[in-house]
Amino acid sequence: MDFSSKLLENAVNEVSRLPGIGKRTALRLVLHLLKQPTDHTKYLSEALLHLRNDVKTCEKCHNISDTTLCDICNNPKRKPEIICVVEDIRDVMAIESTSQFNGLYHVLGGKISPIEGIGPQNLQIESLINKVEKGEVKELIFALSSTMEGDTTNFYIFKQIEKFDITTSTIARGISVGDELEYADEVTLGRSIVNRIPFEQSIRS
Amino acid sequence: MDFSSKLLENAVNEVSRLPGIGKRTALRLVLHLLKQPTDHTKYLSEALLHLRNDVKTCEKCHNISDTTLCDICNNPKRKPEIICVVEDIRDVMAIESTSQFNGLYHVLGGKISPIEGIGPQNLQIESLINKVEKGEVKELIFALSSTMEGDTTNFYIFKQIEKFDITTSTIARGISVGDELEYADEVTLGRSIVNRIPFEQSIRS
Repeated sequence: MDFSSKLLENAVNEVSRLPGIGKRTALRLVLHLLKQPTDHTKYLSEALLHLRNDVKTCEKCHNISDTTLCDICNNPKRKPEIICVVEDIRDVMAIESTSQFNGLYHVLGGKISPIEGIGPQNLQIESLINKVEKGEVKELIFALSSTMEGDTTNFYIFKQIEKFDITTSTIARGISVGDELEYADEVTLGRSIVNRIPFEQSIRS
Repeated sequence: MDFSSKLLENAVNEVSRLPGIGKRTALRLVLHLLKQPTDHTKYLSEALLHLRNDVKTCEKCHNISDTTLCDICNNPKRKPEIICVVEDIRDVMAIESTSQFNGLYHVLGGKISPIEGIGPQNLQIESLINKVEKGEVKELIFALSSTMEGDTTNFYIFKQIEKFDITTSTIARGISVGDELEYADEVTLGRSIVNRIPFEQSIRS
Protein backbone atom coordinates (compact mmCIF):
# COMPACT_ATOMS: atom_id res chain seq x y z
CA MET A 1 0.00 0.00 0.00
CA ASP A 2 1.29 3.43 -0.97
CA PHE A 3 0.07 6.18 1.32
CA SER A 4 0.03 9.85 0.44
CA SER A 5 0.60 10.74 4.08
CA LYS A 6 3.19 9.47 6.58
CA LEU A 7 0.81 10.22 9.45
CA LEU A 8 -1.87 8.09 7.84
CA GLU A 9 0.58 5.30 7.08
CA ASN A 10 1.82 5.32 10.65
CA ALA A 11 -1.70 5.17 12.11
CA VAL A 12 -2.71 2.35 9.75
CA ASN A 13 0.42 0.38 10.64
CA GLU A 14 -0.23 0.71 14.37
CA VAL A 15 -3.91 -0.26 14.09
CA SER A 16 -3.11 -3.24 11.86
CA ARG A 17 -0.86 -4.66 14.59
CA LEU A 18 -4.03 -5.54 16.50
CA PRO A 19 -5.06 -9.18 16.11
CA GLY A 20 -7.46 -9.94 13.26
CA ILE A 21 -7.12 -6.47 11.74
CA GLY A 22 -5.40 -6.24 8.37
CA LYS A 23 -4.19 -3.17 6.52
CA ARG A 24 -7.44 -2.63 4.67
CA THR A 25 -9.58 -2.82 7.80
CA ALA A 26 -7.11 -0.57 9.61
CA LEU A 27 -7.37 1.99 6.80
CA ARG A 28 -11.17 1.86 6.98
CA LEU A 29 -11.13 2.41 10.76
CA VAL A 30 -8.62 5.25 10.56
CA LEU A 31 -10.52 7.02 7.76
CA HIS A 32 -13.66 6.68 9.89
CA LEU A 33 -11.89 8.44 12.76
CA LEU A 34 -10.88 11.25 10.39
CA LYS A 35 -14.53 11.82 9.49
CA GLN A 36 -15.58 11.96 13.15
CA PRO A 37 -15.09 14.94 15.49
CA THR A 38 -11.55 15.25 16.92
CA ASP A 39 -12.89 14.40 20.39
CA HIS A 40 -13.70 10.86 19.33
CA THR A 41 -10.04 10.11 18.59
CA LYS A 42 -8.99 11.92 21.76
CA TYR A 43 -11.33 9.88 23.97
CA LEU A 44 -10.29 6.64 22.29
CA SER A 45 -6.57 7.32 22.72
CA GLU A 46 -6.98 8.47 26.30
CA ALA A 47 -9.13 5.49 27.25
CA LEU A 48 -6.53 3.07 25.89
CA LEU A 49 -3.62 4.89 27.54
CA HIS A 50 -5.37 5.18 30.90
CA LEU A 51 -6.26 1.53 30.84
CA ARG A 52 -2.76 0.41 29.92
CA ASN A 53 -1.04 2.63 32.45
CA ASP A 54 -3.41 2.49 35.40
CA VAL A 55 -5.12 -0.88 35.32
CA LYS A 56 -4.34 -3.24 38.19
CA THR A 57 -4.84 -6.91 38.73
CA CYS A 58 -6.56 -8.05 41.91
CA GLU A 59 -3.80 -9.32 44.20
CA LYS A 60 -5.98 -12.21 45.32
CA CYS A 61 -7.63 -13.56 42.16
CA HIS A 62 -5.48 -11.76 39.51
CA ASN A 63 -8.55 -10.50 37.67
CA ILE A 64 -8.39 -7.09 35.99
CA SER A 65 -9.50 -4.49 38.50
CA ASP A 66 -9.23 -0.77 39.29
CA THR A 67 -8.38 -1.52 42.93
CA THR A 68 -5.84 -3.82 44.59
CA LEU A 69 -8.66 -6.13 45.65
CA CYS A 70 -11.46 -6.67 43.12
CA ASP A 71 -15.16 -6.29 43.89
CA ILE A 72 -15.73 -10.04 43.84
CA CYS A 73 -12.91 -10.85 46.29
CA ASN A 74 -14.05 -7.91 48.43
CA ASN A 75 -17.65 -9.12 48.64
CA PRO A 76 -18.29 -10.60 52.13
CA LYS A 77 -21.35 -12.49 50.84
CA ARG A 78 -19.26 -14.74 48.60
CA LYS A 79 -17.71 -17.97 49.82
CA PRO A 80 -13.91 -17.67 49.74
CA GLU A 81 -13.40 -21.42 50.21
CA ILE A 82 -14.83 -22.26 46.77
CA ILE A 83 -12.52 -21.18 43.96
CA CYS A 84 -13.25 -21.35 40.27
CA VAL A 85 -10.11 -21.54 38.11
CA VAL A 86 -10.50 -19.68 34.82
CA GLU A 87 -8.30 -18.52 31.98
CA ASP A 88 -9.04 -14.81 31.76
CA ILE A 89 -11.47 -12.02 32.59
CA ARG A 90 -13.85 -13.01 29.78
CA ASP A 91 -14.52 -16.31 31.53
CA VAL A 92 -15.17 -14.48 34.81
CA MET A 93 -17.67 -12.23 33.01
CA ALA A 94 -19.35 -15.22 31.37
CA ILE A 95 -19.76 -17.12 34.64
CA GLU A 96 -20.83 -14.00 36.54
CA SER A 97 -23.56 -13.38 33.98
CA THR A 98 -25.16 -16.70 34.95
CA SER A 99 -25.55 -15.62 38.63
CA GLN A 100 -25.07 -19.30 39.53
CA PHE A 101 -21.68 -19.09 41.22
CA ASN A 102 -21.19 -17.70 44.69
CA GLY A 103 -17.49 -18.40 45.30
CA LEU A 104 -14.34 -16.59 44.22
CA TYR A 105 -12.25 -16.87 41.07
CA HIS A 106 -8.62 -17.49 40.31
CA VAL A 107 -7.57 -16.07 36.95
CA LEU A 108 -4.59 -17.98 35.51
CA GLY A 109 -3.95 -15.51 32.70
CA GLY A 110 -3.82 -18.20 30.02
CA LYS A 111 -3.30 -21.91 29.50
CA ILE A 112 -0.15 -24.00 29.37
CA SER A 113 0.78 -24.06 25.69
CA PRO A 114 4.27 -25.23 24.67
CA ILE A 115 3.59 -24.17 21.06
CA GLU A 116 3.03 -20.56 22.12
CA GLY A 117 5.87 -20.79 24.65
CA ILE A 118 3.57 -20.47 27.66
CA GLY A 119 4.70 -22.63 30.56
CA PRO A 120 3.38 -22.93 34.14
CA GLN A 121 5.79 -20.20 35.27
CA ASN A 122 4.05 -17.69 32.95
CA LEU A 123 0.69 -18.30 34.62
CA GLN A 124 -0.72 -17.62 38.07
CA ILE A 125 -0.42 -21.26 39.10
CA GLU A 126 2.01 -20.91 42.01
CA SER A 127 -0.26 -18.47 43.83
CA LEU A 128 -3.14 -20.91 43.38
CA ILE A 129 -1.12 -23.76 44.90
CA ASN A 130 -0.18 -21.41 47.77
CA LYS A 131 -3.86 -20.77 48.51
CA VAL A 132 -4.47 -24.50 48.66
CA GLU A 133 -1.41 -25.10 50.86
CA LYS A 134 -2.58 -22.47 53.31
CA GLY A 135 -5.83 -24.41 53.72
CA GLU A 136 -7.96 -21.52 52.38
CA VAL A 137 -9.64 -23.70 49.76
CA LYS A 138 -12.30 -26.39 50.18
CA GLU A 139 -13.33 -26.83 46.56
CA LEU A 140 -11.54 -26.08 43.32
CA ILE A 141 -13.66 -25.89 40.16
CA PHE A 142 -11.72 -26.17 36.91
CA ALA A 143 -13.48 -24.04 34.29
CA LEU A 144 -10.86 -23.85 31.54
CA SER A 145 -11.94 -24.35 27.97
CA SER A 146 -12.12 -27.95 26.87
CA THR A 147 -9.06 -28.04 24.61
CA MET A 148 -5.76 -29.87 24.69
CA GLU A 149 -4.16 -26.87 26.43
CA GLY A 150 -7.03 -26.53 28.90
CA ASP A 151 -6.90 -30.22 29.82
CA THR A 152 -3.11 -30.07 30.20
CA THR A 153 -3.37 -27.08 32.53
CA ASN A 154 -6.11 -28.74 34.59
CA PHE A 155 -4.01 -31.88 34.91
CA TYR A 156 -0.84 -29.97 35.81
CA ILE A 157 -2.63 -28.16 38.64
CA PHE A 158 -4.46 -31.29 39.75
CA LYS A 159 -1.19 -33.25 40.12
CA GLN A 160 0.15 -30.62 42.52
CA ILE A 161 -2.91 -30.38 44.72
CA GLU A 162 -4.13 -33.96 44.83
CA LYS A 163 -2.22 -34.60 48.08
CA PHE A 164 -4.35 -31.98 49.81
CA ASP A 165 -7.77 -32.82 51.19
CA ILE A 166 -9.93 -30.66 48.93
CA THR A 167 -12.74 -31.33 46.50
CA THR A 168 -11.92 -30.79 42.84
CA SER A 169 -14.49 -30.61 40.11
CA THR A 170 -14.78 -29.52 36.51
CA ILE A 171 -17.73 -27.82 34.87
CA ALA A 172 -20.16 -30.23 33.17
CA ARG A 173 -19.72 -30.86 29.45
CA GLY A 174 -22.80 -31.88 27.54
CA ILE A 175 -25.45 -30.90 25.05
CA SER A 176 -26.32 -27.19 25.18
CA VAL A 177 -29.79 -26.37 26.44
CA GLY A 178 -32.07 -26.16 23.38
CA ASP A 179 -29.73 -28.10 21.09
CA GLU A 180 -30.84 -30.96 18.84
CA LEU A 181 -29.06 -34.25 19.57
CA GLU A 182 -28.50 -35.07 15.90
CA TYR A 183 -26.30 -32.01 15.39
CA ALA A 184 -24.15 -32.54 18.50
CA ASP A 185 -20.60 -33.80 18.01
CA GLU A 186 -19.83 -37.37 19.09
CA VAL A 187 -17.40 -36.46 21.88
CA THR A 188 -19.82 -34.09 23.59
CA LEU A 189 -22.78 -36.47 23.17
CA GLY A 190 -20.65 -39.38 24.41
CA ARG A 191 -19.57 -37.48 27.50
CA SER A 192 -23.12 -36.37 28.22
CA ILE A 193 -24.21 -40.03 28.30
CA VAL A 194 -21.29 -41.21 30.43
CA ASN A 195 -21.76 -38.33 32.88
CA ARG A 196 -25.56 -38.53 32.98
CA ILE A 197 -27.26 -37.04 36.03
CA PRO A 198 -30.30 -38.25 38.01
CA PHE A 199 -33.52 -36.99 36.38
CA GLU A 200 -34.75 -35.57 39.66
CA GLN A 201 -31.64 -33.44 39.90
CA SER A 202 -32.11 -32.16 36.35
CA ILE A 203 -35.67 -30.92 36.95
CA ARG A 204 -34.61 -29.10 40.09
CA SER A 205 -31.90 -27.02 38.37
CA MET B 1 -21.59 -6.87 29.81
CA ASP B 2 -20.50 -6.40 33.43
CA PHE B 3 -16.92 -5.23 33.72
CA SER B 4 -14.80 -5.56 36.84
CA SER B 5 -12.94 -2.39 35.92
CA LYS B 6 -14.21 1.03 34.89
CA LEU B 7 -11.01 1.66 32.93
CA LEU B 8 -11.56 -1.53 30.97
CA GLU B 9 -15.23 -0.72 30.38
CA ASN B 10 -14.35 2.74 29.16
CA ALA B 11 -11.70 1.45 26.74
CA VAL B 12 -14.04 -1.25 25.39
CA ASN B 13 -16.82 1.31 24.89
CA GLU B 14 -14.55 3.65 22.95
CA VAL B 15 -13.14 0.89 20.74
CA SER B 16 -16.60 -0.51 20.03
CA ARG B 17 -17.66 2.87 18.60
CA LEU B 18 -15.52 2.07 15.57
CA PRO B 19 -17.51 0.74 12.60
CA GLY B 20 -17.88 -3.04 12.43
CA ILE B 21 -16.43 -3.60 15.90
CA GLY B 22 -18.80 -4.92 18.55
CA LYS B 23 -18.30 -5.16 22.29
CA ARG B 24 -16.83 -8.65 22.17
CA THR B 25 -14.30 -7.79 19.49
CA ALA B 26 -13.44 -4.59 21.35
CA LEU B 27 -12.83 -6.57 24.54
CA ARG B 28 -10.59 -8.99 22.63
CA LEU B 29 -8.56 -6.13 21.15
CA VAL B 30 -8.23 -4.31 24.46
CA LEU B 31 -7.17 -7.47 26.32
CA HIS B 32 -4.59 -8.03 23.59
CA LEU B 33 -3.17 -4.56 24.23
CA LEU B 34 -2.95 -5.35 27.95
CA LYS B 35 -0.80 -8.38 27.19
CA GLN B 36 1.55 -6.37 24.97
CA PRO B 37 4.29 -4.02 26.20
CA THR B 38 3.03 -0.58 27.29
CA ASP B 39 4.82 1.00 24.33
CA HIS B 40 2.45 -0.68 21.89
CA THR B 41 -0.56 1.15 23.36
CA LYS B 42 1.45 4.37 23.56
CA TYR B 43 2.47 4.23 19.89
CA LEU B 44 -1.07 3.36 18.82
CA SER B 45 -2.63 6.25 20.77
CA GLU B 46 -0.01 8.72 19.63
CA ALA B 47 -0.30 7.68 15.99
CA LEU B 48 -4.07 8.18 16.05
CA LEU B 49 -3.85 11.52 17.86
CA HIS B 50 -1.11 12.86 15.60
CA LEU B 51 -3.04 11.84 12.52
CA ARG B 52 -6.28 13.40 13.72
CA ASN B 53 -4.68 16.65 14.86
CA ASP B 54 -2.04 17.23 12.21
CA VAL B 55 -3.31 15.69 8.99
CA LYS B 56 -4.06 18.08 6.14
CA THR B 57 -5.94 17.78 2.90
CA CYS B 58 -4.25 18.86 -0.29
CA GLU B 59 -5.69 22.26 -1.18
CA LYS B 60 -5.81 21.33 -4.86
CA CYS B 61 -7.15 17.75 -4.98
CA HIS B 62 -8.43 17.44 -1.36
CA ASN B 63 -6.60 14.15 -0.88
CA ILE B 64 -5.20 13.37 2.58
CA SER B 65 -1.67 14.73 2.76
CA ASP B 66 0.99 15.86 5.22
CA THR B 67 1.63 19.03 3.22
CA THR B 68 -0.65 21.73 1.81
CA LEU B 69 -0.02 20.39 -1.70
CA CYS B 70 0.15 16.62 -2.07
CA ASP B 71 2.94 14.72 -3.82
CA ILE B 72 0.77 13.94 -6.82
CA CYS B 73 -0.33 17.54 -7.40
CA ASN B 74 3.26 18.64 -6.80
CA ASN B 75 4.69 16.27 -9.39
CA PRO B 76 5.66 18.27 -12.54
CA LYS B 77 5.65 15.07 -14.65
CA ARG B 78 1.90 14.58 -14.26
CA LYS B 79 -0.61 16.19 -16.58
CA PRO B 80 -2.71 18.74 -14.66
CA GLU B 81 -5.29 19.04 -17.44
CA ILE B 82 -6.55 15.46 -16.96
CA ILE B 83 -8.48 15.05 -13.72
CA CYS B 84 -9.82 11.81 -12.31
CA VAL B 85 -12.80 12.32 -9.98
CA VAL B 86 -12.82 9.82 -7.09
CA GLU B 87 -14.64 9.32 -3.83
CA ASP B 88 -11.83 9.06 -1.29
CA ILE B 89 -8.18 8.31 -0.71
CA ARG B 90 -8.69 4.56 -1.07
CA ASP B 91 -9.67 5.05 -4.71
CA VAL B 92 -6.59 7.21 -5.29
CA MET B 93 -4.44 4.45 -3.81
CA ALA B 94 -6.15 1.80 -5.95
CA ILE B 95 -5.69 3.75 -9.20
CA GLU B 96 -2.12 4.75 -8.31
CA SER B 97 -1.24 1.09 -7.76
CA THR B 98 -2.05 0.39 -11.44
CA SER B 99 0.57 2.97 -12.66
CA GLN B 100 -1.74 3.58 -15.65
CA PHE B 101 -2.87 7.11 -14.84
CA ASN B 102 -0.68 10.13 -15.34
CA GLY B 103 -3.07 12.98 -14.52
CA LEU B 104 -4.23 14.49 -11.25
CA TYR B 105 -7.08 13.55 -8.94
CA HIS B 106 -10.01 15.34 -7.41
CA VAL B 107 -11.20 13.71 -4.19
CA LEU B 108 -14.88 14.46 -3.56
CA GLY B 109 -14.90 13.07 -0.02
CA GLY B 110 -17.98 10.92 -0.61
CA LYS B 111 -20.98 10.51 -2.88
CA ILE B 112 -24.29 12.32 -2.98
CA SER B 113 -26.56 10.24 -0.75
CA PRO B 114 -29.87 11.72 0.45
CA ILE B 115 -30.39 8.71 2.75
CA GLU B 116 -27.19 9.48 4.64
CA GLY B 117 -27.88 13.20 4.47
CA ILE B 118 -24.95 13.92 2.16
CA GLY B 119 -25.74 16.61 -0.41
CA PRO B 120 -23.53 18.32 -3.03
CA GLN B 121 -22.65 21.03 -0.51
CA ASN B 122 -20.99 18.42 1.75
CA LEU B 123 -18.65 17.32 -1.03
CA GLN B 124 -15.80 19.00 -2.88
CA ILE B 125 -17.93 19.57 -5.98
CA GLU B 126 -17.84 23.37 -6.11
CA SER B 127 -14.03 23.44 -6.22
CA LEU B 128 -14.13 20.94 -9.08
CA ILE B 129 -16.54 23.14 -11.08
CA ASN B 130 -14.26 26.09 -10.36
CA LYS B 131 -11.31 24.24 -11.87
CA VAL B 132 -13.36 23.57 -15.00
CA GLU B 133 -14.59 27.17 -15.19
CA LYS B 134 -11.04 28.46 -14.99
CA GLY B 135 -10.18 26.39 -18.08
CA GLU B 136 -7.63 24.27 -16.22
CA VAL B 137 -9.25 21.00 -17.24
CA LYS B 138 -9.26 19.25 -20.62
CA GLU B 139 -10.59 15.87 -19.58
CA LEU B 140 -12.60 14.75 -16.58
CA ILE B 141 -12.64 11.02 -15.80
CA PHE B 142 -15.45 9.89 -13.51
CA ALA B 143 -14.17 6.99 -11.38
CA LEU B 144 -16.84 6.76 -8.70
CA SER B 145 -18.14 3.35 -7.74
CA SER B 146 -20.93 2.05 -9.93
CA THR B 147 -23.84 2.45 -7.52
CA MET B 148 -26.97 4.54 -7.46
CA GLU B 149 -25.14 7.19 -5.39
CA GLY B 150 -22.10 7.10 -7.67
CA ASP B 151 -24.21 7.49 -10.80
CA THR B 152 -26.19 10.33 -9.20
CA THR B 153 -23.00 12.17 -8.27
CA ASN B 154 -21.55 11.68 -11.76
CA PHE B 155 -24.74 13.02 -13.33
CA TYR B 156 -24.95 15.99 -10.96
CA ILE B 157 -21.42 17.06 -11.83
CA PHE B 158 -21.90 16.33 -15.53
CA LYS B 159 -24.97 18.60 -15.73
CA GLN B 160 -22.94 21.53 -14.39
CA ILE B 161 -19.95 21.13 -16.67
CA GLU B 162 -21.57 20.04 -19.94
CA LYS B 163 -21.67 23.63 -21.18
CA PHE B 164 -17.88 23.76 -21.07
CA ASP B 165 -15.77 22.40 -23.90
CA ILE B 166 -14.07 19.50 -22.11
CA THR B 167 -13.94 15.76 -22.64
CA THR B 168 -15.71 13.66 -20.01
CA SER B 169 -15.30 9.94 -19.63
CA THR B 170 -16.03 7.22 -17.14
CA ILE B 171 -13.87 4.20 -16.35
CA ALA B 172 -14.79 1.10 -18.36
CA ARG B 173 -17.16 -1.42 -16.77
CA GLY B 174 -16.83 -4.99 -17.93
CA ILE B 175 -15.73 -8.50 -17.13
CA SER B 176 -12.72 -8.61 -14.82
CA VAL B 177 -9.51 -9.92 -16.37
CA GLY B 178 -9.38 -13.67 -15.69
CA ASP B 179 -13.11 -13.99 -14.93
CA GLU B 180 -15.34 -16.67 -16.45
CA LEU B 181 -18.25 -15.28 -18.49
CA GLU B 182 -20.78 -17.70 -17.02
CA TYR B 183 -20.31 -16.27 -13.51
CA ALA B 184 -20.54 -12.60 -14.51
CA ASP B 185 -23.72 -10.73 -13.61
CA GLU B 186 -26.06 -9.77 -16.48
CA VAL B 187 -25.66 -6.02 -16.13
CA THR B 188 -21.87 -6.15 -16.30
CA LEU B 189 -21.86 -8.65 -19.16
CA GLY B 190 -24.50 -6.61 -21.01
CA ARG B 191 -22.50 -3.41 -20.65
CA SER B 192 -19.32 -5.14 -21.77
CA ILE B 193 -21.05 -6.18 -25.01
CA VAL B 194 -22.61 -2.78 -25.67
CA ASN B 195 -19.32 -1.00 -24.96
CA ARG B 196 -17.15 -3.48 -26.83
CA ILE B 197 -13.78 -2.23 -28.00
CA PRO B 198 -11.87 -2.90 -31.24
CA PHE B 199 -9.85 -6.11 -30.92
CA GLU B 200 -6.70 -4.37 -32.06
CA GLN B 201 -7.04 -1.90 -29.23
CA SER B 202 -7.48 -4.70 -26.70
CA ILE B 203 -4.29 -6.49 -27.68
CA ARG B 204 -2.33 -3.29 -27.45
CA SER B 205 -3.32 -2.54 -23.84
